[in-house]
Amino acid sequence: MKYSQSFIPTLREVPTDAVIVSHRLMFRSGMIRRLGNGLFSYLPLGLRSFRKVEQIIREEMNAIGSLEIKPTVVIPGELWKESGRWDSMGEALLRVKNRLGADFVVSPTAEEPFTALVRDELSSYRQLPISLYQINTKYRDEVRPRYGVMRGREFVMKDAYSYDADEASLEKSYQDMGRAYRRVFKRCGLSVISVKADSGAMGGSGSEEFMVESEIGDNTLLLCKSCDYAANVEKADCKPDHSAETDHNLWSGEGSPPDHSAFSSAAASTPPVEKIDTPNVKTIEELCSFLKTDAKTFIKTLVYRAVKVELQGSECEEAFYAVCIRGDLEINEVKLCALLKAAEVSLAGETDVVRLTGAPVGFAGPVGLTRLKVIADFTVTAINDGVTGALAKDLHYKHVACGRDFQPWMTASLRTVKAGDRCSHCGGELYEKKGNELGHIFKLGYKYTKSMNVSYLDEKGVRQIPLSGSYGIGLDRTLASVIEEHHDDDGIIWPITVAPYHVIIVPIKYDGAVKAAADSLAEDMERQGIEVLLDDREERPGVKFNDADLIGIPYRVVIGDKNLAGEIPKVEIKRRSEKESRLVELGKAAGELKEKVQAELAELNKVNL
Amino acid sequence: MKYSQSFIPTLREVPTDAVIVSHRLMFRSGMIRRLGNGLFSYLPLGLRSFRKVEQIIREEMNAIGSLEIKPTVVIPGELWKESGRWDSMGEALLRVKNRLGADFVVSPTAEEPFTALVRDELSSYRQLPISLYQINTKYRDEVRPRYGVMRGREFVMKDAYSYDADEASLEKSYQDMGRAYRRVFKRCGLSVISVKADSGAMGGSGSEEFMVESEIGDNTLLLCKSCDYAANVEKADCKPDHSAETDHNLWSGEGSPPDHSAFSSAAASTPPVEKIDTPNVKTIEELCSFLKTDAKTFIKTLVYRAVKVELQGSECEEAFYAVCIRGDLEINEVKLCALLKAAEVSLAGETDVVRLTGAPVGFAGPVGLTRLKVIADFTVTAINDGVTGALAKDLHYKHVACGRDFQPWMTASLRTVKAGDRCSHCGGELYEKKGNELGHIFKLGYKYTKSMNVSYLDEKGVRQIPLSGSYGIGLDRTLASVIEEHHDDDGIIWPITVAPYHVIIVPIKYDGAVKAAADSLAEDMERQGIEVLLDDREERPGVKFNDADLIGIPYRVVIGDKNLAGEIPKVEIKRRSEKESRLVELGKAAGELKEKVQAELAELNKVNL
Repeated sequence: MKYSQSFIPTLREVPTDAVIVSHRLMFRSGMIRRLGNGLFSYLPLGLRSFRKVEQIIREEMNAIGSLEIKPTVVIPGELWKESGRWDSMGEALLRVKNRLGADFVVSPTAEEPFTALVRDELSSYRQLPISLYQINTKYRDEVRPRYGVMRGREFVMKDAYSYDADEASLEKSYQDMGRAYRRVFKRCGLSVISVKADSGAMGGSGSEEFMVESEIGDNTLLLCKSCDYAANVEKADCKPDHSAETDHNLWSGEGSPPDHSAFSSAAASTPPVEKIDTPNVKTIEELCSFLKTDAKTFIKTLVYRAVKVELQGSECEEAFYAVCIRGDLEINEVKLCALLKAAEVSLAGETDVVRLTGAPVGFAGPVGLTRLKVIADFTVTAINDGVTGALAKDLHYKHVACGRDFQPWMTASLRTVKAGDRCSHCGGELYEKKGNELGHIFKLGYKYTKSMNVSYLDEKGVRQIPLSGSYGIGLDRTLASVIEEHHDDDGIIWPITVAPYHVIIVPIKYDGAVKAAADSLAEDMERQGIEVLLDDREERPGVKFNDADLIGIPYRVVIGDKNLAGEIPKVEIKRRSEKESRLVELGKAAGELKEKVQAELAELNKVNL
Repeated sequence: MKYSQSFIPTLREVPTDAVIVSHRLMFRSGMIRRLGNGLFSYLPLGLRSFRKVEQIIREEMNAIGSLEIKPTVVIPGELWKESGRWDSMGEALLRVKNRLGADFVVSPTAEEPFTALVRDELSSYRQLPISLYQINTKYRDEVRPRYGVMRGREFVMKDAYSYDADEASLEKSYQDMGRAYRRVFKRCGLSVISVKADSGAMGGSGSEEFMVESEIGDNTLLLCKSCDYAANVEKADCKPDHSAETDHNLWSGEGSPPDHSAFSSAAASTPPVEKIDTPNVKTIEELCSFLKTDAKTFIKTLVYRAVKVELQGSECEEAFYAVCIRGDLEINEVKLCALLKAAEVSLAGETDVVRLTGAPVGFAGPVGLTRLKVIADFTVTAINDGVTGALAKDLHYKHVACGRDFQPWMTASLRTVKAGDRCSHCGGELYEKKGNELGHIFKLGYKYTKSMNVSYLDEKGVRQIPLSGSYGIGLDRTLASVIEEHHDDDGIIWPITVAPYHVIIVPIKYDGAVKAAADSLAEDMERQGIEVLLDDREERPGVKFNDADLIGIPYRVVIGDKNLAGEIPKVEIKRRSEKESRLVELGKAAGELKEKVQAELAELNKVNL
C-alpha cells in the first residue's frame, strides 16, 4: 500500500483535551478523528489495527465454541422493560421514541436480546450449553466522555452470553471465557491485572475483571505486595485489625444476625456508658481533638437509604438502616448494596435523618436507637470502649461497648480497604493502583433468565431455568491500552499482532533505482503475506522518519542511493523498538523480514493459558 | 464444524408475515430471527453468509482504492443541521436527545460525517481525489417495515463518498464505483438490472441504480423490448407520440420558456375556443363520455404546491403552478420536483385551488389563467383542438390550441411513462417490472460540499469547492436477493461465494465406521480450506437431508454403511442444484470436492467488468 494513497493525516499538534498518551498518539498518527463529544471516527490506519484486535477476539471466541450472531444495535424498549432495566439502568441508557411512539434503546449491552433469543429457541436440555457472542456497536451516554476512545460514548464491545443447565456447566463456560480473555490480551501484547471478585461478597456468583494499570483509570485496585491477591476497591477485603472482629463464637458471621447471648469479656472492665456535652463539635476530627482521643475509638454511624431491598426472602421498595463503622474507616457502598441485595444505596437526606434519629446529622449512634436496624462493620464489634453520637444535638456517649450497650441487627465486612491494610489471604501489605477495565466476565446466575422467563425441559421432562453468564471486552479500550503500554516519546511501538502494517519502506527519494528497489521489495513481501506501507511521498527523509516512528510500524526499511550503489546493494533495517539499524543485502531483505515478522507473530500468538 | 454445535434452528413453519421467499427461507433455515418490528438478529448460519457478502464488497472497494473508515452510528445532530437534512429528511430520520439535551441521529446514511471529516483534513488539491467508505449499521424509521431483512428498519449499508477536484475526476470515481458494484453483484451470483438515470432530468448529475427484479419491489422499472434501455419510472422517458412534441423550432427545449412567437400551423384550421356547459361532470372519464371524445384530446390541469423552489437563480419558500398534461397521462412528480429544483411538490389543497383558479377542483385549465404560471408537458404542446376546464364550476372549453389560446410559461417532459410507451432510444416497446434497489451510485456535485463549506487550494492557490459522489449498497437486501434468485421448493441453493459452508457431510448414522469416515473426510477438507458442516445429529436421514436442502449448502456428501463396506469404500456426492448424486471413492472425495469448490469460486469471482 502506498502512503500517498492511504489517508494518514499525521499531526504535530494535539488537541488540548488529549491528556493521555493513547489519545494524543491516536490523534497525531491519524488513527482517529473527533466527530463529536465522545464520538470518534477511525481513519484507515486506526481501523486496520482495530480490525486486528477484532479478529483476535473472534478467533479466541470461536476457539472456545462460542458462536457469533448479530442482533440489532437499536433494541425494542419492551425487552428492557421485561428485564427491568428500562427503569433500573439510569440515564446512561440512550432511550429513543420512534415516529410511531414505540420505545427503543441504543444498545449499551445486550443481555436482553440474547436472552429473548434463547427463550424463543431453547426447549430441551440437549441444546445446552449455549454460548453466543456479538462484536457490535454500543452506546452509553457518558456525561463526561474523555480520554479519546478510552471513555467514549459510542464504542464497540464483544459481548458474550452463556446459558447452562447447572452450576458446574456455568463454571466451565466461565472458566473457558476467562482463558479466552487471557489469550486475547496476551496476543495483543497487553499486561493485564486479573481482579477476581470475592465470591462471598457477591452472593455465590463469580466475577473477574481484566484491568490494565492506568493513571487515569476509573477503578482503584488493591494489590498485595506478598501474594497475587488483586481486587477492585469496590470488593476488596482485608485482614481484620483485631481478633474480636473474627471471633465467630461471638458473631455468627457475615450477613447474619449476631448471637446476642454471648459477650466479649473485654467489655467487663469498661465503665458504664456516659453522656458528654460536645458543643459545636461536628466532624470526627473535631471530636478527636476535643476528647483527645483516636478516631479508632469512634463508632461512626451513618443513615443509609436503600432502594428495592431483597433480604431474607422478602422485598421492600425503600428501607433505612443505621450503618456503623470504626471512625477512621469508610463504608464501601458497593458491599453494603450487595449485602442488602439492594438496587441502590445512598446516604439518607437530612429530613430522614432527623425523623429517624431524633437529632440533626452528625449525632447518630447505635445506643438507644429504636427506629433503625443497626448494621455493624466487623471493626465495630471489636470496640469495647468507644465514643458515638447520643441521638441529640451536641451530645455524645463515651464508654460504649458493642454487644453490651447495643445489639447490631447484622454484622458484615463493609469497610473500604485502603493502601497499608493487610492482605486477607497472606497478611502482606496492600498497595493501590489505578486501573482501567478492558474486560469483565460475570456469572449472572438466574438474573435475566428468571425475569425474562427462560426455561427448558430437563432429562426427566421437568421445566428448569438455565443459569447464565455475561462476558464483555471493550475493543476501543483494548486498542488504546496497547498504545498506553507500547510507546516512546516519538510515537507508538506496535506489537506485531495489532500493527496496522508489519513493515514500512522509506525510500530516501522515491525515484530512479531507489524507487525500483522499493517497489520490487514491497511487491515481493506483499506476495508473501507481509503487510507493507511504502512511503512514496515527496517529503524530506526527516519527515518520513518521524512519521514512521509516530505511526509505529514494527520494521522500517530505509532505501537510499548510497547503500544501493555498493558492489552488493544494501538496505537499512531497523526495528521500531530498537535504536540501531543494520545493513542487509537488498536481495535478502524480503526473506529476513518475512522470517522476523512471522517469528514475532508466532511468539505473541503462542498461548498456553 | 459440527451441526450439533452450530445453533441452526431450522423450522417447518413460517411466521404468517413472511410473504416473500427470502424471508420465509431465512427464517426457516435458522439464518435470522425477529427481534422487533423491522429488526432482525442474524444467527450463526446467516451471519456466515452475511460476512461473505461483506467481504466481497470490501475487496471490491479496496480494489478501486477506496479506503475503509469507521465513523460512529450515533451522529451529532449539529452536522445534520449544517447540511440542512435535519429539517428536510422527514420522519424516517431517527432523532435522539441525550441526557444533556444534545441532539443526535442514528445514521440512516452518512454524507454528513464523511463530508465533515474531509472538510477538516482537506487543504490542497494534491490530496484529491479522496474515496472513503464504511460498512456499518444504519437505521431508517420505516412506518411499515416488512419482507424480513429486505425492508427492515435497521440494516447494514456499505456507503462510500468520493471527493474530486473536477467533473472528469468525479466521472472516473463514479465509473470506478459502478464497475465495482457490477463485480460485487456478479460475485454474489446476482442478476442485476442497471438503471441509469437520464442525466438531463437530474440537472447535470448522474445516477445509476442496481435493481433486482422482485414481485414486491418498491420500484417500477421500464425496460425496452428492443434495446438495453432500463429506467426507474420516476425518471423514465419515452418517445413522443406526436412530432409536435419534439418540434424544437417551436419549443426551445425542456425546462426553458417556449418561443411565443412561433406557432404550429396545425392550429390554423381549429375553430375558435368555445365555452360548453358540463353539468355534474367531474372526472375525465365522465367528460369523455359526455363529450363522446377521447381522453387524449383533454388538457388535464393540476395545481401543484412546491416547497423551497430554486429556479433561475432565485429561491422561494412556497410557490404554486398549474401543470398541464394530456388527459390520458399522469404527471410524474419526481420529474416535476427536479424541474423546479424543489424540495417537495404536492397537489394543492382545495382552498388554494379555489383562490388561484376561481373555481372548485376539477375545472382548472390554462386558458385565461392569470394567477398561476402554466407548466405544460410536451404532450400538451401537440394539442391543437383540445378540451380543458374553463375556470368556473360546470364549465369547460373546447377547440383549445396550445400556443394560440394560452402560452405555457415552461414546457418539459413530465409524463409518467408506462408499459406500451415507446423507448426514447430505439422506439421499441417498453414493458414494466417491479424491482428492488440493492445499490445506488450518485453524483452529488456540490450539494454537501457547498452547504458544509468544504474547500481546498488548487494549483494556483485559489480556493475551490470539491465535487462529491455518494455510493451505497444494502448488505441485507443483497443477501436476501441472492436467496430470491437461487432457491427451489426445498430451500436455498447458495452460490458458492456466499454459501455459509461449501460442503455438508451427512452420515446416515454418526457411529462406527461411518463416523470415522465422516470425521476424517471433514478434517481433510477443512485442512485444505474447504468449509465443512458435519451433520452429527441423532436424527433420521430424512430430517438431515431436508435440512441440508433447506440451508442450501452447495455440495452434499452422504456417508452410509453400505457404500462404505464395498471393496472400494465409496460416498455419495450431490450438488444442491442438481437432482442426481454420484458415487465417488472415499479416498478421492476430498480431492474432487476441493477441485469443484475452487473451480466454482474461481468462476464466480472471475470478473472482467
